Amino acid sequence: MSSNFPALDTLRTTCISRLESSLDGLLPASSAASRLSQAMRYAALSGGKRIRPLLVYGATGLAGAPLSQGDIPASAVELIHAYSLVHDDLPAMDDDDLRRGQPTCHKAFDEATAILAGDTLHTRAFELLATEGQYRADTRIAMIRHLSQASGVDGMAAGQMQDMQAQGQLQTVAALEEMHYLKTGRLITVSLQLGYFAAEINEPALLQDLTRFGDAIGLAFQIQDDILDVTMDTEQLGKPSGSDEKLNKSTFPSLLGLDASRERASLLCQQAQQALSAYGDRAAPLQQLAQYIIARNH
Amino acid sequence: MSSNFPALDTLRTTCISRLESSLDGLLPASSAASRLSQAMRYAALSGGKRIRPLLVYGATGLAGAPLSQGDIPASAVELIHAYSLVHDDLPAMDDDDLRRGQPTCHKAFDEATAILAGDTLHTRAFELLATEGQYRADTRIAMIRHLSQASGVDGMAAGQMQDMQAQGQLQTVAALEEMHYLKTGRLITVSLQLGYFAAEINEPALLQDLTRFGDAIGLAFQIQDDILDVTMDTEQLGKPSGSDEKLNKSTFPSLLGLDASRERASLLCQQAQQALSAYGDRAAPLQQLAQYIIARNH
Repeated sequence: MSSNFPALDTLRTTCISRLESSLDGLLPASSAASRLSQAMRYAALSGGKRIRPLLVYGATGLAGAPLSQGDIPASAVELIHAYSLVHDDLPAMDDDDLRRGQPTCHKAFDEATAILAGDTLHTRAFELLATEGQYRADTRIAMIRHLSQASGVDGMAAGQMQDMQAQGQLQTVAALEEMHYLKTGRLITVSLQLGYFAAEINEPALLQDLTRFGDAIGLAFQIQDDILDVTMDTEQLGKPSGSDEKLNKSTFPSLLGLDASRERASLLCQQAQQALSAYGDRAAPLQQLAQYIIARNH
Repeated sequence: MSSNFPALDTLRTTCISRLESSLDGLLPASSAASRLSQAMRYAALSGGKRIRPLLVYGATGLAGAPLSQGDIPASAVELIHAYSLVHDDLPAMDDDDLRRGQPTCHKAFDEATAILAGDTLHTRAFELLATEGQYRADTRIAMIRHLSQASGVDGMAAGQMQDMQAQGQLQTVAALEEMHYLKTGRLITVSLQLGYFAAEINEPALLQDLTRFGDAIGLAFQIQDDILDVTMDTEQLGKPSGSDEKLNKSTFPSLLGLDASRERASLLCQQAQQALSAYGDRAAPLQQLAQYIIARNH
């Protein structure tokens, strides 16, 4: 991470090690099915940008709570993200061999193990929110409700379905935005909401502002992903570049052109920053995360 | 259902229509991904013995609460069961073409849709428990906690993993029992526990008795499944018979012989009935369900 983002550097330094030690403790080292535990750990502990957990911690911090309050929802949302990657990479879905520069889970293990590892990461996310940490029961329910709604048939999974159905078809910008909002945006926004709920404060205006911030950076994140897919090579990305074109997918650059896509991402980043402008320095890590999302090169 | 089981007949008549109308209302008729919604409905609404929901309702009734209190956990546990069947039937797992006399989900739709439909049924189960019906927050948490623990990496999914790893290997009776306890037994026991929690009473001895009952009928159920697999034909079962032998799986009949397997199932049924003997007529539907499990022929 570049030192143009000092507040974000601090958040990352503190939070990524918090997250990884939290996940390490919360995932089974062995179990009734040790190969399955290994596959879960492989999928969840092999790096990644950890953007969703950073958003959880950023929101918890902005809400004035200690970062430790964010550990459980940060871990839960990362497990949902990890499960979705394992399943999306399967041969019957996107058929990807490489993820974060490593063999995908079904390549490192086998397809049946990968399906089950995705399933158990998925279950574990909800188990964490129901079981771990110190939260009021109504806080746990709010987190489970929001996370399930964001990731299910009206959220992330519907986005993956739309994405597969759209392959080979020319889409409108509106349809592309809806697909990305479901597939990626909802999990990004819910990360901020979970961070807010974990702080156990009652400040509805902050929840609304975090939601606006999340909706804007979610779309900016996806536009930047599309831009990187056409401008970077496979080694830089850690996953196959040019894959959208190969699958004949509509992308923001293919529909709008590169320059207009960059402008759009930049505008969304400004909108995100305005959403949190009233919170001053407390919002600095999230503000810089928004900037990083469009400045990143992988 | 035979009229040898009048209390069970009443439970079934009332509860299966309750369950199916509950599921019908709780599953999306259309959504952002209508093909995905169709696959979810196909997997969850195409019949089956509905044993787990009956156990939920039976426990809710025994705990003295109106059956309507059981609707949400009965639906949730059936969605978890349906998700597990859809994923277990996939080509990379058990590769089954037929389920309940119908094409399996990936045959009726396609593999990618089946993977996602399993995922969204899974998410929806937890969403229901967090969102629907009228329960105290701590009741919801107890239900989500127990259901996630019973179905995850220390429960149902671990059992499926053990089952796949055991194919072609001669197992001990103890290993076979552990596998079935995880794969089938835990979801059966948790059905009774959810029915208890849904009644929102505080009677720990009943919870314990229901757990003993569930553990016994769970194993009896699986022994009977193994017996039916060798004694019935495909049409009677609604799924391929003889599949255990084809996969070179150890079964209770292959390890113990048919007669000893039948005796074992019968003994477990008696143990189950003893667990609830103190509850008299209130336990009649569950008692008869235990008998039905070893008398059934499909």
